[in-house]
Amino acid sequence: MNIKEMDKKYVLPTYARADIEFVKGKNATLFDSEGKKYIDFTSGIGVVSVGHANERVSKALCEQLASVTHTSNLYYIAPQAQAAQKVVGTSGYDMQCFFANSGAEANEGAIKIARKHGERDGEIKRYKIITLNHSFHGRTITTVKATGQEAMHNYFGPFPDGFVYADGIDEIEPLLDDHTAAVMIELIQGEGGVEPQDKEKVQALAKLLKEREIPLIVDEVQTGAYRIGEFTASQAYEISPEIITLAKGIGGGVPVGIVMTTLKNVLSAGDHGSTFGGNYLSSRAVCEVVDILNEKKQSGDLEITSLMFNQSLEKFYNANKDIFTQKVGIGMMCGLRVKDADTLTNIINLAKENGVIVLKAGRNTLRFLPPLTITKEEIDEGFSALNSAMSQL
Amino acid sequence: MNIKEMDKKYVLPTYARADIEFVKGKNATLFDSEGKKYIDFTSGIGVVSVGHANERVSKALCEQLASVTHTSNLYYIAPQAQAAQKVVGTSGYDMQCFFANSGAEANEGAIKIARKHGERDGEIKRYKIITLNHSFHGRTITTVKATGQEAMHNYFGPFPDGFVYADGIDEIEPLLDDHTAAVMIELIQGEGGVEPQDKEKVQALAKLLKEREIPLIVDEVQTGAYRIGEFTASQAYEISPEIITLAKGIGGGVPVGIVMTTLKNVLSAGDHGSTFGGNYLSSRAVCEVVDILNEKKQSGDLEITSLMFNQSLEKFYNANKDIFTQKVGIGMMCGLRVKDADTLTNIINLAKENGVIVLKAGRNTLRFLPPLTITKEEIDEGFSALNSAMSQL
Repeated sequence: MNIKEMDKKYVLPTYARADIEFVKGKNATLFDSEGKKYIDFTSGIGVVSVGHANERVSKALCEQLASVTHTSNLYYIAPQAQAAQKVVGTSGYDMQCFFANSGAEANEGAIKIARKHGERDGEIKRYKIITLNHSFHGRTITTVKATGQEAMHNYFGPFPDGFVYADGIDEIEPLLDDHTAAVMIELIQGEGGVEPQDKEKVQALAKLLKEREIPLIVDEVQTGAYRIGEFTASQAYEISPEIITLAKGIGGGVPVGIVMTTLKNVLSAGDHGSTFGGNYLSSRAVCEVVDILNEKKQSGDLEITSLMFNQSLEKFYNANKDIFTQKVGIGMMCGLRVKDADTLTNIINLAKENGVIVLKAGRNTLRFLPPLTITKEEIDEGFSALNSAMSQL
Repeated sequence: MNIKEMDKKYVLPTYARADIEFVKGKNATLFDSEGKKYIDFTSGIGVVSVGHANERVSKALCEQLASVTHTSNLYYIAPQAQAAQKVVGTSGYDMQCFFANSGAEANEGAIKIARKHGERDGEIKRYKIITLNHSFHGRTITTVKATGQEAMHNYFGPFPDGFVYADGIDEIEPLLDDHTAAVMIELIQGEGGVEPQDKEKVQALAKLLKEREIPLIVDEVQTGAYRIGEFTASQAYEISPEIITLAKGIGGGVPVGIVMTTLKNVLSAGDHGSTFGGNYLSSRAVCEVVDILNEKKQSGDLEITSLMFNQSLEKFYNANKDIFTQKVGIGMMCGLRVKDADTLTNIINLAKENGVIVLKAGRNTLRFLPPLTITKEEIDEGFSALNSAMSQL
């Protein structure tokens, strides 16, 4: 039985898989089972932030595999403490971390912290979480409900009450009431169409929430780990949220989610936990990824890579203005609005045939999330393949 | 700053950590930061099923790290299909798998499948999930509510409605109604006190549920991956559940959760998903762990190890009947009931001082979850340390 037959026989059909099986990668380059080469402008939806088969990550994890990968959280775990120090230190926020295994689990932790924080002595319980329409916060039953997409709220109910949706940052204030436990937003909606929020509006919201003593949760599952140029998008937006969640790019390919918060005394021992979360293997990955990206940031390399990528994207956009209506995004989380959804599907398929993989976001956005370590050669080769794709459209 | 100070400064205080920092392991042996040796009778709460720093797992994962660890589930992932084939094949059930990143996420998947299955044409929606008191199903908001422990249902509400708790297997039938979507049980409650369910009662329940067309979910997060002698406890109990969840031991230290089900056509593309779930790294770990354990089972080694461990435990129990009131559990998921909770705490602390680590379960159970690869020498050394601990009690 070949892999595709095996997948169809033994894996639940929750994914509409493209007809490719990758077998090997190196930085932003992938090879499929037939030896065909692809440039990866997706990094596994923002996960392999430091590229496929990164040598430093591999070396660190092989060392860890030879020594110890997992004990329970009943004991101290050095790489977990070190990862927390690196993440908090790099963020510049006065926070502490909880380690989970995915973005959804990180957001579950954020909601739990906000709701326990909402049980303040002598007040009515604050339990409502305001999120935005077109948001995406995960696939657990609670994070599905936190996701402001009506189409996601089918089948799996009863969902937990207490989620309220705002049409945009502007629409949040009128929804705040004595039951509001937190506001939870993405600064750039990833799944929602690579739509950055307006910086001044976000700053005004952050200020308002501080005045009202309502925690702001920023879901940085996709924007975190230097995706938009700073370690967190919150830093780029110059705000100080009470809770930030990280996942995807922070582990470089190892499953990990982190919730970090200034609300250090809300959860007590036993209130929350994870068997795998923060184990030696995943924490060591976080340490190495953060080190690599910090060095890349400090040397100026990260900015150069982002500039190169965006110049090439701009050029590609300008050459195809009959197809694309707008360039969107920040840093290496960017996209091109396509005139219609069918054309977008065609572009993605033709891109694949021509040796470059790209993503869809929302209804009509061609999404780019390249590894942050992508080389000039890989960028050039990827856009050259995209140009070939466009000529066949 | 040392690791303990770093942990206190940067990690949220959700764990009551014992004053040990492990730095290295080999099979069932751990070494702390001061060079002290310990026998590990816990395997990270059932996670390192094939031992610490297992050479075959390390070799497989290092190979994978050098080639590719992660792409999105939009493409075929060979180790995922292979892991699904191995897991399903070893179970003997006609099932398909969905890959998540933890036991909690696997249980979320199980609940989602049961609830979507509960939306049958022309009938009222079935949404209730019956679980057992003293159960433990995870730390997401929904799995916290599924957990039949009143003390867990604080702080984080509103929780989703639709969970109903039975006092025991006997008490489930009267709770079944036209809204029941599924019954979810552990065959041995791990966190609840290592309490095996009665086999005949479970078989009668499974039969009843088939007649009523209500899916049975067996949470095998702790019992799965040969923990009690068969690949799943469901096989040992000779039942055919509709849904089984696996995590902990199935990845040997890499975060992974699996939901497997006979209900292959309930979820469609887009209904559920995971960014990390089933990636090359975690799936490759599953493949290698299942291969190792299958070989150990087929060679008879697994049974011999379990017999040796249980003989030593029986001897230890018989020598300390003034302290222990009962030996409980099946296979290498076992425990000793302690006459009172304070004595249990003392035993765990003295054991640690004498070089063996053991767990607590429920209120008064000393819990043993050794690696399934533990050697005779390690078993002897561990119980020798436990005897020293008892002599100091």
